[in-house]
Amino acid sequence: MDVEFINPFLNSMSSVLTTMATLSINPGGASLKQDDLPPGDVTGIISMSSPQTRGTLAISFTKPVILEITKRMLGDELSEIDDTVIDLVGEITNMVTGSAKRMLGEKGYEFDMATPIVITGVDQKISHLAKGPVIIIPFETESGTFYVEVCFERAQ
Amino acid sequence: MDVEFINPFLNSMSSVLTTMATLSINPGGASLKQDDLPPGDVTGIISMSSPQTRGTLAISFTKPVILEITKRMLGDELSEIDDTVIDLVGEITNMVTGSAKRMLGEKGYEFDMATPIVITGVDQKISHLAKGPVIIIPFETESGTFYVEVCFERAQ
Repeated sequence: MDVEFINPFLNSMSSVLTTMATLSINPGGASLKQDDLPPGDVTGIISMSSPQTRGTLAISFTKPVILEITKRMLGDELSEIDDTVIDLVGEITNMVTGSAKRMLGEKGYEFDMATPIVITGVDQKISHLAKGPVIIIPFETESGTFYVEVCFERAQ
Repeated sequence: MDVEFINPFLNSMSSVLTTMATLSINPGGASLKQDDLPPGDVTGIISMSSPQTRGTLAISFTKPVILEITKRMLGDELSEIDDTVIDLVGEITNMVTGSAKRMLGEKGYEFDMATPIVITGVDQKISHLAKGPVIIIPFETESGTFYVEVCFERAQ
């Protein structure tokens, strides 16, 4: 998996949060996942498949980060991860993937997108069981860091 | 979503655990998801998409149930959900979905399958953000109950 696949997700994530949440985010360098990440509290997951490849995107937020995003996007000052937050995480996951899908389509990679799933729970650990490297991109915000994981493999 | 979509998953789940784990399981009636489920400790998730529809399967195990399945399938008596268990949950998710995919293919529904993701963590709650009903199928075993969730929607 090369940078051609990663940049659309990095750009989409920045674009969605900057425009929708007016949240300044600072993407760090993409790296191969070696160890378990600091666990998030709520994670949006979406899968993509195409004749050439298939892959998964996961966006994992800690509670302070997603509550700040919720406040900025919806105007709701919440103290817990409730159904409003869960829906928002699903919507962000959809928007980021949809935007990246369009960019990849322009490069000749056409994907079907699955529907998003959102997981809440304590000490989450996400294991991508794909036969491909997992790329981690940290995004720093004033409320903390969140992580985007992207994993693609060649279709069987 | 009708029973035509649900039965292949129900049959595949029973078949995989009966043949691979020689575990007697008793599928309960499928029902629409109304409330949050009793949380699982480890959940395998896989997405499918086709020109006609797209959907997601989640299989959520409590620790006692998956450790019993691990013992029966691999011969390993483990006390914690480690990488061996995570890989096994991913493999079960793959097998169940692959088998259901073949059954659905015989009915004229061709799906691309994504790669599985496995989530561990305490008090997990899975939210399917699809525009379709979420069907829950409980499976009773001697070590406890586990749940399969299936959600399909019409493609946009």
